[in-house]
Amino acid sequence: MYDLIIVGSGPAGLSAAVYGKRAGFNLLVMEEKPMSGGQVLNTYEVDNYLGMPGMNGFDMGMKFKEHADMAGAEYKTAVVAAIETEGETKIVKTTDGTCYEAKALILATGAQHALLGAPGEEEYKGKGVSYCATCDGAFFKGKDVAVVGGGDVAVEDAIYLSRMCRKVYLIHRRDQLRAAKTLQERLLKCENVEVLWNREIDRIYGDDLVEGVMLRHAAGQKPAEQSGAGRSGTEEAATKRQHKELAAAERTVEELAVNGVFIAVGMHPNTEVFRTAVPCDVQGYVIAGEDCATGVPGVFAAGDIRTKQVRQIITAVADGACAIGSVERYLNEK
Amino acid sequence: MYDLIIVGSGPAGLSAAVYGKRAGFNLLVMEEKPMSGGQVLNTYEVDNYLGMPGMNGFDMGMKFKEHADMAGAEYKTAVVAAIETEGETKIVKTTDGTCYEAKALILATGAQHALLGAPGEEEYKGKGVSYCATCDGAFFKGKDVAVVGGGDVAVEDAIYLSRMCRKVYLIHRRDQLRAAKTLQERLLKCENVEVLWNREIDRIYGDDLVEGVMLRHAAGQKPAEQSGAGRSGTEEAATKRQHKELAAAERTVEELAVNGVFIAVGMHPNTEVFRTAVPCDVQGYVIAGEDCATGVPGVFAAGDIRTKQVRQIITAVADGACAIGSVERYLNEK
Repeated sequence: MYDLIIVGSGPAGLSAAVYGKRAGFNLLVMEEKPMSGGQVLNTYEVDNYLGMPGMNGFDMGMKFKEHADMAGAEYKTAVVAAIETEGETKIVKTTDGTCYEAKALILATGAQHALLGAPGEEEYKGKGVSYCATCDGAFFKGKDVAVVGGGDVAVEDAIYLSRMCRKVYLIHRRDQLRAAKTLQERLLKCENVEVLWNREIDRIYGDDLVEGVMLRHAAGQKPAEQSGAGRSGTEEAATKRQHKELAAAERTVEELAVNGVFIAVGMHPNTEVFRTAVPCDVQGYVIAGEDCATGVPGVFAAGDIRTKQVRQIITAVADGACAIGSVERYLNEK
Repeated sequence: MYDLIIVGSGPAGLSAAVYGKRAGFNLLVMEEKPMSGGQVLNTYEVDNYLGMPGMNGFDMGMKFKEHADMAGAEYKTAVVAAIETEGETKIVKTTDGTCYEAKALILATGAQHALLGAPGEEEYKGKGVSYCATCDGAFFKGKDVAVVGGGDVAVEDAIYLSRMCRKVYLIHRRDQLRAAKTLQERLLKCENVEVLWNREIDRIYGDDLVEGVMLRHAAGQKPAEQSGAGRSGTEEAATKRQHKELAAAERTVEELAVNGVFIAVGMHPNTEVFRTAVPCDVQGYVIAGEDCATGVPGVFAAGDIRTKQVRQIITAVADGACAIGSVERYLNEK
């Protein structure tokens, strides 16, 4: 029986491990991947974690892990299948059938950026392809970049990048943005931002680094998909013609020279196995405030996994400290 | 006219400077002290800032400052006399009569721990005297320590330290604790904690490091102070006798050998000049949540200065990032 089980060993989980061990807790860190560090490991350079400027993400992940090791953290590589949170004793079941028990749980499995799925995306990750303007925008000072998406984050990213980049193209597959009207108005005031409507990325190309993207016209909503029943022969002929035109447009490819491609098409929290056990919002994030307390007493959520506005390494690490503070208060009141 | 003025250059202010410069803001950091870094500078060792284990506080402060320098932060050494926050343009007035203007403000002047005022306190700061059990408790594993205070924080600290120290003395100048009943109940369950009632620290002694404290009986509420009017001669004689006994007790000094002295007698936010401009709580902390937004649009509060549960370096640094996110959203909506 542990005092605490921490599920996930990214920045939030490892920080919770440091604070938890220093607080004298008997704790276990569970991680399904062979290496701890989370998303940081795959980050080319991190330049906004105060005190560690311009650090390679992999090295940073290693430093985080070493710190938790020095604090005396105990680890278990295992895939969590389910958690039981009703009783005083919280149970973590792994896919190999083992059950681990603790007085409290911290869920810190993070989130992942949705991929575009375009050729070149994986290849140029950290070499011009980014999923975080706040993190990487400053690396593209005076350059031309593209942002892909149409929601709040995409528009915010375009505005953000307009302050440091020479030219920002916002590539959106529809003919209108989903983003809030105030953001759209702000975007229109940015003279160096150009919205490319009804476009999709066909592929991302370059040499060592990104040099541009090939764009194709997006299909949009095809007439054939709108309704099939009760149409006249003339309508059907018109539909076929439209369909043909669209198909031709889709094949039309244009080139856009950019140094950076910021992909802002969504984020998925890694909460599949927790969703029935703790209250989550519609997007799947565990509902928890700054104190990391979830709707279930004794279960806490730290880092990108929880509802919050700023998902950064530093805010995840801070969550680790806050979650341990809340675990202490929870155990003190038991 | 700046985009942003950041008042204070501790961890929160410097982190805001890094995020703000990277976001392309024209910003100014104001600091009244000759050196940036805040409370960190006077910390002997920091061991819970993930990725930078066992670092001297002064070195950490320097690293923080260097990082903000690299990001291109501009600084001004000046003492803020007042802020004007009503209009769209925020004004910072310094004691030399200069006015600085910005579209947004981040207040990040921090807080300071209340001092005990006992001889030896200043001398042994960082050499056994600490104001933060979460920060420094782990340095006293297996040792005997004293906690001074009677509120929630003092009792939480005693419980916290009981998990790693051999013996914890809670020194309180009254005969009952102010802390929440649940905390007191928890404290009673800690077998290695002993409460020393009606005691005050006379002095802290040691060699290179703290070796112990001299305690005196606390005066408590003197009978003479209770009421002066309408007492009989007999009552007055009794009062005088009690008074004498108390005076004698106050002179009685007992020795307590401890390696650490954790002082938990309160904290004061550095908000004197802001209190009429932004809503503060009864203790003087600027009322603001995780998004650092205060009651005044365009004015944000980051770090120890704001209402929050966990005041740590890492949470202050995270606030810097969150505050810049909020400044962006505020400017985007203007």
